[in-house]
Amino acid sequence: MTDNLRVAVVGAGRMGADHIERIHSRIVGARVSAVVDIDAERARSAVAQIPGAQAYSTPAEAYASGTVDAVLLATPGFLHEDALLEALEQDLPILCEKPLTPDAESSWRVIEAEQKLGRQRIQVGFMRRFDADYAKLGKIISGGDLGELLMLHCRHRNPGTPEGFTNEMLINDSVVHEFDVVRFLTGEEITSVQVRLGKASRNAPEGQHDPQQVLLETASGVLIDVEIFVNAQFGYEVATQASLESGIVDIGADHGPVTRTAGRVGGDVTPGFEERFGDAYDREIQSWIDAARRGEVGGPNAWDGYATAACCEAGVRAQASGEKVAIELNEKPELYR
Amino acid sequence: MTDNLRVAVVGAGRMGADHIERIHSRIVGARVSAVVDIDAERARSAVAQIPGAQAYSTPAEAYASGTVDAVLLATPGFLHEDALLEALEQDLPILCEKPLTPDAESSWRVIEAEQKLGRQRIQVGFMRRFDADYAKLGKIISGGDLGELLMLHCRHRNPGTPEGFTNEMLINDSVVHEFDVVRFLTGEEITSVQVRLGKASRNAPEGQHDPQQVLLETASGVLIDVEIFVNAQFGYEVATQASLESGIVDIGADHGPVTRTAGRVGGDVTPGFEERFGDAYDREIQSWIDAARRGEVGGPNAWDGYATAACCEAGVRAQASGEKVAIELNEKPELYR
Amino acid sequence: MTDNLRVAVVGAGRMGADHIERIHSRIVGARVSAVVDIDAERARSAVAQIPGAQAYSTPAEAYASGTVDAVLLATPGFLHEDALLEALEQDLPILCEKPLTPDAESSWRVIEAEQKLGRQRIQVGFMRRFDADYAKLGKIISGGDLGELLMLHCRHRNPGTPEGFTNEMLINDSVVHEFDVVRFLTGEEITSVQVRLGKASRNAPEGQHDPQQVLLETASGVLIDVEIFVNAQFGYEVATQASLESGIVDIGADHGPVTRTAGRVGGDVTPGFEERFGDAYDREIQSWIDAARRGEVGGPNAWDGYATAACCEAGVRAQASGEKVAIELNEKPELYR
Amino acid sequence: MTDNLRVAVVGAGRMGADHIERIHSRIVGARVSAVVDIDAERARSAVAQIPGAQAYSTPAEAYASGTVDAVLLATPGFLHEDALLEALEQDLPILCEKPLTPDAESSWRVIEAEQKLGRQRIQVGFMRRFDADYAKLGKIISGGDLGELLMLHCRHRNPGTPEGFTNEMLINDSVVHEFDVVRFLTGEEITSVQVRLGKASRNAPEGQHDPQQVLLETASGVLIDVEIFVNAQFGYEVATQASLESGIVDIGADHGPVTRTAGRVGGDVTPGFEERFGDAYDREIQSWIDAARRGEVGGPNAWDGYATAACCEAGVRAQASGEKVAIELNEKPELYR
Ligand SMILES: [Mg+2]
Ligand SMILES: [Mg+2]
Ligand SMILES: [Mg+2]
Ligand SMILES: [Mg+2]
Repeated sequence: MTDNLRVAVVGAGRMGADHIERIHSRIVGARVSAVVDIDAERARSAVAQIPGAQAYSTPAEAYASGTVDAVLLATPGFLHEDALLEALEQDLPILCEKPLTPDAESSWRVIEAEQKLGRQRIQVGFMRRFDADYAKLGKIISGGDLGELLMLHCRHRNPGTPEGFTNEMLINDSVVHEFDVVRFLTGEEITSVQVRLGKASRNAPEGQHDPQQVLLETASGVLIDVEIFVNAQFGYEVATQASLESGIVDIGADHGPVTRTAGRVGGDVTPGFEERFGDAYDREIQSWIDAARRGEVGGPNAWDGYATAACCEAGVRAQASGEKVAIELNEKPELYR
Repeated sequence: MTDNLRVAVVGAGRMGADHIERIHSRIVGARVSAVVDIDAERARSAVAQIPGAQAYSTPAEAYASGTVDAVLLATPGFLHEDALLEALEQDLPILCEKPLTPDAESSWRVIEAEQKLGRQRIQVGFMRRFDADYAKLGKIISGGDLGELLMLHCRHRNPGTPEGFTNEMLINDSVVHEFDVVRFLTGEEITSVQVRLGKASRNAPEGQHDPQQVLLETASGVLIDVEIFVNAQFGYEVATQASLESGIVDIGADHGPVTRTAGRVGGDVTPGFEERFGDAYDREIQSWIDAARRGEVGGPNAWDGYATAACCEAGVRAQASGEKVAIELNEKPELYR
Repeated sequence: MTDNLRVAVVGAGRMGADHIERIHSRIVGARVSAVVDIDAERARSAVAQIPGAQAYSTPAEAYASGTVDAVLLATPGFLHEDALLEALEQDLPILCEKPLTPDAESSWRVIEAEQKLGRQRIQVGFMRRFDADYAKLGKIISGGDLGELLMLHCRHRNPGTPEGFTNEMLINDSVVHEFDVVRFLTGEEITSVQVRLGKASRNAPEGQHDPQQVLLETASGVLIDVEIFVNAQFGYEVATQASLESGIVDIGADHGPVTRTAGRVGGDVTPGFEERFGDAYDREIQSWIDAARRGEVGGPNAWDGYATAACCEAGVRAQASGEKVAIELNEKPELYR
Repeated sequence: MTDNLRVAVVGAGRMGADHIERIHSRIVGARVSAVVDIDAERARSAVAQIPGAQAYSTPAEAYASGTVDAVLLATPGFLHEDALLEALEQDLPILCEKPLTPDAESSWRVIEAEQKLGRQRIQVGFMRRFDADYAKLGKIISGGDLGELLMLHCRHRNPGTPEGFTNEMLINDSVVHEFDVVRFLTGEEITSVQVRLGKASRNAPEGQHDPQQVLLETASGVLIDVEIFVNAQFGYEVATQASLESGIVDIGADHGPVTRTAGRVGGDVTPGFEERFGDAYDREIQSWIDAARRGEVGGPNAWDGYATAACCEAGVRAQASGEKVAIELNEKPELYR
């Protein structure tokens, strides 16, 4: 292995391009050696500014070049299963952007493949665990000074959605982060999900019901409510309030300069997830690289990917039925305990 | 009628005593002329500091004295129906501490009695409508600049509960205020209620499940979630977050001096409802007195009392069953439209 | 004395009119019996809505009517000395809007006249002492938990000034409140004052230099800096930050609903002093009335009026010279210790 | 030049050690190739964890090794002049921790030496310019939407000071950052300085007068007051409030989780400068490295070092005399315009 871990970024869309820039200019101990995209032009343009990086059309070509020490997977989720299995065959450290795969069954196949390797190789891109506030909230909860955690109130608000953002994507692309956060904060699995559809915003596009309220429960009975509101206009907000036995904790408030002008006092709302979670992405990728150099995983693993895939699947069914849907998981393999 | 409205306070317990003090030292245009309590000693002690006030054992004796222009009813809720009917017979302006009565059926009898008088005489003691923040939130919502209201997230937290505070009282004594707030803020009736019981705090007394989450829906589909947590230890908090089509509004934060000391920055939590709503009580009683002098009602009326009684009844059933319970109201009489 | 203290309000301008309305509708134990104004029309119009109140052209006429138990003086400051001496001759309780008089010498004559009566009769209208936050800050400082007070940083900002608001009025009308606050919070006299004139806002009217920085020092060496900025455009703000040996305390932040909309998070700035100090005025007048009924003074007294007059005089000289000006007071008479 | 800029860190004390760790694990495009310290043991121990780095006793030895592309100077300030002149002779990019040198005269000699090179080589370690909030405040001020800047209120509070921290160090080590911030925010030179000593905290060590108030003025008349309080106990705070013609802007508030517990609501105070400015240091060093690779300076330059040295010199005199001391600078050479 070279001094700098040589990373192949698979998928050069918005997220992939961000990660290429990140590894190039902010991550220590790694460099981008390969960019893979079926759109050859997109791959070429992505490597243009990165000295020593080559463009490829398929992961196989990149692996064959002998220049890949680790893989960052940033393609659409429905392509993940094949790419993961292929990278596992190479026994490479993998950072897989969420979701692991779009459904529990395919995620389980990935789990089985990883088990054959006998060690964890896959880290899943749930970057909120690397956000300073979520990390502190996690410590406050597990620290125990405020007693047991009883409830979580989660808010996930976007100013708007790209064209074609469906009801299912509300769960699979947005609420999926809350599934991971809830599992991270409680240290427990989610056992049921229910979705309430009430009055919808007139700013939601045709066919999308927005906002929605998602109700979760964990194994020990922690109650969670999530407001998912993806056409909230005012800006971007991801915030959580935790109710513990002897205290309440809030994270997610905006900060920065506070201005008094024109009859108003306050600050700017975070405009988007890049501003809100930019530092968390940096820390996530650095943690992955640092762990990969030690042959380990530095964040949420394939089991986390599988469990959240099961939550998403149940969430989409709950959304359609209005009923409370139970979530049942396979037994957790030894490898992830 | 004399220059100062002569008020009979019926019930000289904690709430009654507060109101006696309030009318005596802070309310303009009224004075306490009579205090009624079956506990003669308590009534006598209540009038000791109030020049010109007499103690009585029953409302009838007070009315017979010819010194009563208005009645403030502060006895336990199960005694309200008889007292209200008796006061209506005297055609007196009444401020009835919440609840109007403990169930929808008895509330409806009060509604029928008031209708016979042909004018509204009863104001119900939902003081939150007189809190400056709730009033401003109401104006922001009805003003329409932020679009339609879509969701309300309500928090109702007490440091602890007196002995004998049951699960039913969680709904009837605490959540009842949220029922009124929701109706006030939305201008709509509540159509269903569901109660989720999850993990309970070890600080809750035997037989009480605390916290609980109460889910409501209004006629137009506004979704409401209420955290009712009555052994929250840290202090008192009543807060609401409203999600509108193009903005989010929060009320209920504590204020006052902000101190940086010993590694912490922040302020004091409101210790109890007297500190949080003391001003609202003053404004409520002043509004009642001012309206009573004009022969009107100056706040929530008997219909509001009836509707919230129906919510409470459904809420208690929802708490027991875990199911969503529909709330159905009689047709609203002309008098309250 | 009647049940309700009969108050003569002298001066029916903006401040006088406010107090008339206040005593009429919010103050318990007092009623307006007389309104005195040399503008007979203004006096008549002021009493129009107040049953039982009479209009007069001079205080003497009002006193002669035998209907005056107490005097509230709301004329311009240069008229105060005569009116105070006349009311003291009647031995009436007096609430004198600030300033006591416009200069230390005339204030001292009032002090001498009051001493002859042998009891305090004059309360001066420094209403900030009745503001909840200033009161709490005073308690935090005197409580001693945070050690000794070392510095005070005061901000006094108005959106704009009425026509003809001079540099001297910056000191005499605005900073005068800070003089009182500093004396109230430290429990000490102010020993020197210096004024710094820097870059001026283009929003200041011709002839007025705005903002200015006023530097004070107390007997024990507490350092105070005041930003006085009367054309600050954005709204009204009166805030103080106290530095103590082991903590920092801030008061004066706006509160109320917090809104997230259009990329901004925050609340409304207080528009003016009525909104900021409305409650303080109510409490001040109520405290005066309650004390007056006991034959006492219920707030800052004539000595406070004299001491602040001396501060103002020195402040105006400091403003002109740019030099540090010492403040020397006569010995404090027994009556005020 | 190699791919990674090879940095010699001169001085391996606390600050030097921090920078070694920073360049090693967080800075892209640079690596530590040499550590220089007269304490040979300290130098050796500093390179122990850094593969490829060598320990030296003098800069000359390090330069002779042919492994140095850039110099980071982290020795005490009185050693800076010689080290700077020696590094300039090598024509190397230099990051000089503040101060440039301890007085204006020696700083001017450095300026003259750099001018002979004909290009800027020295960046001075005023890291606040790289703090996100100061950067935003700078943009708000220069953006002009709120009109001209009129006043700055600066707070600089430390929990305590190391042994031997003198009155002069209050100015030279702490207020020096405010001198730079004021010059950065106003884009102007500071023309005078005055120091007020009032009541001192009993927590200040023998011989140190703490807190102090430093009053500054810029060329256009912006007035600045600085509270420097280095034994403030409660924690660390660096905050600035800017008064502009039509708005007020505050930076420096703590954030992170807000907790309601035990009757208090709030968050943790920043404990020290590492937590407050850790990110700023990273950005500063990265900016220096990125610029150095282009042959440029990426932050405050030698002129900024000279001008602040002149401020410090005047500040110490002002502290001793209590008088306002004018600050006069040599004409600014072409190289820095
Ligand atoms: Mg890199
Ligand atoms: Mg009264
Ligand atoms: Mg009155
Ligand atoms: Mg490096």
